[in-house]
Amino acid sequence: MCELLGVTSSVATNLALSFSGFAMRGGKTGPHADGWGVSFYEGRFARTFLEPRPAYNSALREFLRQHPNPAALAIAHIRKMTRGRAAFENTHPFVRVLHNRHLVFAHNGTLPNVRERPLRSESAVGETDSEHAFCVILEALRAAYPASYPESARELGQTLFELGNEIGNDGTFNFLLADGQYLFARCGDHLSYIVRRAPFGHGTLADSDVKVNFADAMSGDPDESVAVVASEPLTSDEPWQKGLPGTLWVFRAGQLVTEILPPSARVAASAPPRIQTAH
Amino acid sequence: MCELLGVTSSVATNLALSFSGFAMRGGKTGPHADGWGVSFYEGRFARTFLEPRPAYNSALREFLRQHPNPAALAIAHIRKMTRGRAAFENTHPFVRVLHNRHLVFAHNGTLPNVRERPLRSESAVGETDSEHAFCVILEALRAAYPASYPESARELGQTLFELGNEIGNDGTFNFLLADGQYLFARCGDHLSYIVRRAPFGHGTLADSDVKVNFADAMSGDPDESVAVVASEPLTSDEPWQKGLPGTLWVFRAGQLVTEILPPSARVAASAPPRIQTAH
Repeated sequence: MCELLGVTSSVATNLALSFSGFAMRGGKTGPHADGWGVSFYEGRFARTFLEPRPAYNSALREFLRQHPNPAALAIAHIRKMTRGRAAFENTHPFVRVLHNRHLVFAHNGTLPNVRERPLRSESAVGETDSEHAFCVILEALRAAYPASYPESARELGQTLFELGNEIGNDGTFNFLLADGQYLFARCGDHLSYIVRRAPFGHGTLADSDVKVNFADAMSGDPDESVAVVASEPLTSDEPWQKGLPGTLWVFRAGQLVTEILPPSARVAASAPPRIQTAH
Repeated sequence: MCELLGVTSSVATNLALSFSGFAMRGGKTGPHADGWGVSFYEGRFARTFLEPRPAYNSALREFLRQHPNPAALAIAHIRKMTRGRAAFENTHPFVRVLHNRHLVFAHNGTLPNVRERPLRSESAVGETDSEHAFCVILEALRAAYPASYPESARELGQTLFELGNEIGNDGTFNFLLADGQYLFARCGDHLSYIVRRAPFGHGTLADSDVKVNFADAMSGDPDESVAVVASEPLTSDEPWQKGLPGTLWVFRAGQLVTEILPPSARVAASAPPRIQTAH
């Protein structure tokens, strides 16, 4: 299994703090020693750094910590092999171009049969089920939006919700997908998020018992907001929201903007299909 | 204008030496201060590092020099803006996936009208004529080889030769394109190469008057061979071969394997269409 981390904020900030506890799981406090990767968006371009080795003692990761590039949207992943060797081509996140922007994708879980699905124009460089699933999603998005990128993130979220259910039906499919503006997050079996707003308080990193002051990493903007999505809560003393299996969240600029719940949750709530869009 | 550098070798080696003099041109001895990038192949995957700032004093470039990853195929580029801002998305090399491998592309020159050419499935993330030209090439390769990657590098070289003439007819089109195994190099108006074979001698870097011992960077394999392609010779005292405009070279594992000369050169030599393939 692997772990996912996605961050979006209202102001470009140093995202290194969110990665600190996370990277510890890459071979030190967790078993995820087979690779790590991170994509930072600069506009529509995703700067991506990958290594097929543990994150916790990586010189490249340390370089990135010492030379932070402020960003407002990032996806990171640490990997424990389930499919494919430890190699660059099997390391998440995966990046492709769709309609003049990078799409970035990272997956947690296993999709044992997804590689049997035929592909037309997309193809995987590595051997993972994850990259193949990303290719399936890309082809579906090309078919659904042949002329240009969808303007409505809610519509795109609904398409990804349905694709997530369809592909995830045959395995475990927690994923993060970003397009430079929005962060789409699907909970297959476990995924949590938190939205932190200014003024920022303290939190205790779940992996190191270290107390951090979130205000240290922030820009000082009084309206600043940061949304963090992770496989497991990164802090032990903040109110993380756990996802119901099948849920798709859409985040933008440090806010949850849309939540699409699975049908089971809708029945449980005796409510009509629930698509919440924040004001 | 920009500068190109491509290196292929028979054994994975530290390619940093070839980049030393080259990177100096990125704002120190040359005017190419608007960005730099390098792609190192690991199998079919191209690890790519880019920065929209001068190469000569870059902390990331220094990190890569101190933490070399042996590679047998790499493309580098330093940029002086002609089209598009200094931004990640406008920095070469560009990377796309075609038939289960990364293709890497870098361009020197200007193609003033290429962005008027319509694209179907490919699209550019940035605003450069170069990335658009790469997209035109990718679509032509997808059309020519719809089912799988061409097995014959000579056939692919011929296709790229023709595409280079067609696209380059309307501007200046020096380019390097790599696929993980082969390095294709087109001379539009200036491009030079050299093949160095063991035992390696000395050379004087054209940009710094520093004498370097090429054997220092080599693996020690007695059959080792390295091919270097660059916009301008990197050393002042080695027999670099200058390309005739329109020439396409194909390199593999440190050797020139195919040279396709332009029709003008064939007429001049009163010879039939000349496609040389090394033994």
